[in-house]
Amino acid sequence: MRIALAQQNYRIGDIAGNTAKILAAVEEARSAGAELILFSELAVCGYPPRDLLEFPEFIDACEHALEQIREAAQGIGIVVGAPQRNPNKNGKRLFNAAYVFHNQALVGVAQKTCLPTYDIFDEYRYFEPAREWSVLTFQGLKLAVTICEDIWNLGDHPLYPQCPLDHLIAQQPDLILNLSASPFDYTHLEDRKAILQQNVRKYHLPMLYCNAVGSQTEIVFDGGSLVMDAKANLIQQLPLFEECVRCVDWTGDAQFIQPIQVPSADLPHVEYNPDSLQAEQGIPEIHQALVMGIRDYFGKMGFRQAILGSSGGIDSAVTLALAVEALGKENVHAVLMPSPFSSAHSVSDAQLLSDRLGNPYEVLPIDRVFDAFLTELKPVFADRPFGLAEENMQSRIRGNFLMSIANKFGYILLNTSNKSELATGYGTLYGDMAGGLAVLGDCYKLQVYALARYINRDKEIIPVDIIDKAPSAELRPNQKDSDSLPDYSVLDPILYQYIELRNGPESIVLQGYDRHTVERVIRLVNLNEYKRNQFCPIIRISPKAFGMGRRMPIVAHYLTDKPKS
Amino acid sequence: MRIALAQQNYRIGDIAGNTAKILAAVEEARSAGAELILFSELAVCGYPPRDLLEFPEFIDACEHALEQIREAAQGIGIVVGAPQRNPNKNGKRLFNAAYVFHNQALVGVAQKTCLPTYDIFDEYRYFEPAREWSVLTFQGLKLAVTICEDIWNLGDHPLYPQCPLDHLIAQQPDLILNLSASPFDYTHLEDRKAILQQNVRKYHLPMLYCNAVGSQTEIVFDGGSLVMDAKANLIQQLPLFEECVRCVDWTGDAQFIQPIQVPSADLPHVEYNPDSLQAEQGIPEIHQALVMGIRDYFGKMGFRQAILGSSGGIDSAVTLALAVEALGKENVHAVLMPSPFSSAHSVSDAQLLSDRLGNPYEVLPIDRVFDAFLTELKPVFADRPFGLAEENMQSRIRGNFLMSIANKFGYILLNTSNKSELATGYGTLYGDMAGGLAVLGDCYKLQVYALARYINRDKEIIPVDIIDKAPSAELRPNQKDSDSLPDYSVLDPILYQYIELRNGPESIVLQGYDRHTVERVIRLVNLNEYKRNQFCPIIRISPKAFGMGRRMPIVAHYLTDKPKS
Repeated sequence: MRIALAQQNYRIGDIAGNTAKILAAVEEARSAGAELILFSELAVCGYPPRDLLEFPEFIDACEHALEQIREAAQGIGIVVGAPQRNPNKNGKRLFNAAYVFHNQALVGVAQKTCLPTYDIFDEYRYFEPAREWSVLTFQGLKLAVTICEDIWNLGDHPLYPQCPLDHLIAQQPDLILNLSASPFDYTHLEDRKAILQQNVRKYHLPMLYCNAVGSQTEIVFDGGSLVMDAKANLIQQLPLFEECVRCVDWTGDAQFIQPIQVPSADLPHVEYNPDSLQAEQGIPEIHQALVMGIRDYFGKMGFRQAILGSSGGIDSAVTLALAVEALGKENVHAVLMPSPFSSAHSVSDAQLLSDRLGNPYEVLPIDRVFDAFLTELKPVFADRPFGLAEENMQSRIRGNFLMSIANKFGYILLNTSNKSELATGYGTLYGDMAGGLAVLGDCYKLQVYALARYINRDKEIIPVDIIDKAPSAELRPNQKDSDSLPDYSVLDPILYQYIELRNGPESIVLQGYDRHTVERVIRLVNLNEYKRNQFCPIIRISPKAFGMGRRMPIVAHYLTDKPKS
Repeated sequence: MRIALAQQNYRIGDIAGNTAKILAAVEEARSAGAELILFSELAVCGYPPRDLLEFPEFIDACEHALEQIREAAQGIGIVVGAPQRNPNKNGKRLFNAAYVFHNQALVGVAQKTCLPTYDIFDEYRYFEPAREWSVLTFQGLKLAVTICEDIWNLGDHPLYPQCPLDHLIAQQPDLILNLSASPFDYTHLEDRKAILQQNVRKYHLPMLYCNAVGSQTEIVFDGGSLVMDAKANLIQQLPLFEECVRCVDWTGDAQFIQPIQVPSADLPHVEYNPDSLQAEQGIPEIHQALVMGIRDYFGKMGFRQAILGSSGGIDSAVTLALAVEALGKENVHAVLMPSPFSSAHSVSDAQLLSDRLGNPYEVLPIDRVFDAFLTELKPVFADRPFGLAEENMQSRIRGNFLMSIANKFGYILLNTSNKSELATGYGTLYGDMAGGLAVLGDCYKLQVYALARYINRDKEIIPVDIIDKAPSAELRPNQKDSDSLPDYSVLDPILYQYIELRNGPESIVLQGYDRHTVERVIRLVNLNEYKRNQFCPIIRISPKAFGMGRRMPIVAHYLTDKPKS
């Protein structure tokens, strides 16, 4: 039996468009001789649909789409993810379900058991977990249909009391299917292959794993769907960050024959050490994720052209290079906005970068507008010395220039802030924190440097001067980041401990970091929740990004009021 | 037996401060002869602590605080809410628990069963539900200790499979205790008394309900703690929006004697019809909630002084009046920033308002800075006509003026946007959408009018001209809100259907609204998620506010791409 995996990029809420895409893949698989086709989790509505699931009419529309898919299941079995209404009086109103159709009939529905409710996931907000498990029989084959996190519980998962495959195995299934919407992060690639191996070794069954691909605002789905035989040999792997439909042939005696298409290059082997920040780790995949994140955001929002402030610093340089790769050089507009405190090389470095990338740019000095502001505010400010207010004012003038041009020409402003700045609040609300999408907001400064070197891997694109010079906001004479912050080589590992690992100050200090620095850094992170709360979506590449996956109180006093030192 | 209820205002994460407050109430109750004192849900760490719960050191600090509270339980029983580590290998790491201490010993711990995971609530993200239930015996009295939502499940709740009191009742308790952190919204006052009555009538037991009070950024806890006897008579009710410790005397034969203090005025009786927007409903309580929301935000952030743009329109007028009430007239700085398109009466109305309120104000025209921007952008904009870019530019110049003054003097910018504008995207990011806290962001325009009339209930504070004139952003000649939006009398009820009730277009149209208008409004709401995603916290007064309680995809295509008309 030939089985197809459809690794597709859906648009959230675009039920008609997603259904058309699903039906096209069914047609393609049927033409290729497939008898069964597998889609990803909640393919019909896109993942994550979030509170759209609370609208009864939205669920009606999903049910209508399922009817169309059922009708298309002529001569082919279809396994597709969609929400299902819970007929029981008790519990959440929906299940996160996988529908199996064949010959225009519903074969059965499997429901997700392990509902992630942590980090970016809110599944318990909407879904009731499965409490009954049955294999679904298709062409004499018993399918153990599971959804995403279901296979991450091997019976000893700390979060989930029920292991669906432990229940299903008693019914002697022939194959394990898994419909996933499993997001990329740089720790996650090796995990996924390992968890499939663990399942196969525990249950001695072959496994087909179909993941979503494509970016949904902040969340990047990287594809990388897999087929493993009952001996845990990798039979087929679909590419990362690409849509495709691929088939495997199943001989019926628990074996697959050779894949009918050449497998893509082996998935990268990343030996990730989660205990500390490894800034060089996973950079090629992070690069791909960021490019896809930009491209899909624009594509799905219906925009083509980006604008960004190009300061001559490394963050805007890397953002610009990524945007040019994602959108095309003619679609990325750089604006160089020197202030009275900008160095001459800032402008020339930024110009050199745009000359190399070939994207259009403008130079718009901010000094005259800055003067106008200072003149108007003179009666209010009186003779108070130049300070943070004047620094932020410059940043907000730049924000206004960028947004004005964006509004005039229909561009979207890309934000260039990195994770280290966002963590410590080293940025200006409505100034350099403005933008529709933050490209580097989940990359620590050390990772931004690694990305710059990666972009320059074949030839120098980002001028080495940009990479080598000391970071500066250039908002007052001779300003350096290091005036306000610890060196990034010290700062970033502490931030990683606090943000990614949720270690408190005592356990960070125990690892050998200076107590005063640790407490200062944590205090900065806590005090700046209010800024991040107003920040745009960040393309997520780590296991703990700022945004929907990190939910901290804005007004909190833990470790903030009274530093212990 | 004398029993005290401590209705207190905690600071999230300030475990030491909250513990000091708890110990002070214990002392006060003991002095008043109380033998038992009841605190609210998660009193030790404040509610909601959100992802602070993921830090092991944070839980350590809570445990340390519980030791101090245990030691203070000398001659008095203490029932207090705090997180508890889950000793089991499976399930979430914590319970949402109530600790009972007496004579420096732990009597027992009750765990919350019904964990709200909807709207602003994320309890399943952190907590495992109780799966065992035991009454806790104190001085021969069997206490059925429940936490918040536990009493909202009377055995037939659609969300929760387990009803804790159904389990506890078999152990023949004498009293039901409930520790709550139940937020205010204008639909909720009557609900709460009704649910206590239903419990008392079902279980024939008296009930003591202790709620938190005080605002936590967006969430307002209104207090209103209650004591009901076994015949559902209201014995004691604590005031709304105020901290206090109150006692009742329990005779031991299932009755309370008269309360030892005069009860506060009867809680308002609000007969709320949830099927449609009732803009006049609950206005006095909304007013109190907004004043407390402002006051606590500033108090807990450690700020004293506010700034806001005073446009001569109704939104800024109501915000200013509320801020003056919350912070004192000398602490609220109004800035009048006329543009070339502002009418003369806008400035004079705003001046009259500040004259009446007695708060300081400045007039800072934006025309010269606006000219400077237009001059710089001339080469970029060329001869394109005046449009949205120039309108937004003015709004962002105001934002920069306000933030510059705020930064210079340490003020916090109050945002004046209302819910109707936020819903439809009728506002400028980084312009009039700037601010640290949105006072009216959960009030539809019709509710803002009702608040203005309420503020003027005894004498005219807000000039009637401000209330009577047609709403306008004044960013181009003769602009009116009604150029861009349906009349608020049409718009607001449609928004309420879509936002509060999660009705889709078909069911809204079925109620008699014009299809074209409904689809246009829903399209605007969906398209502007990206703006609201960058908006500041909004004081929540409705059952569905923008912000943490409404989680919609930013890039979603449901009803947005292809309007059906």
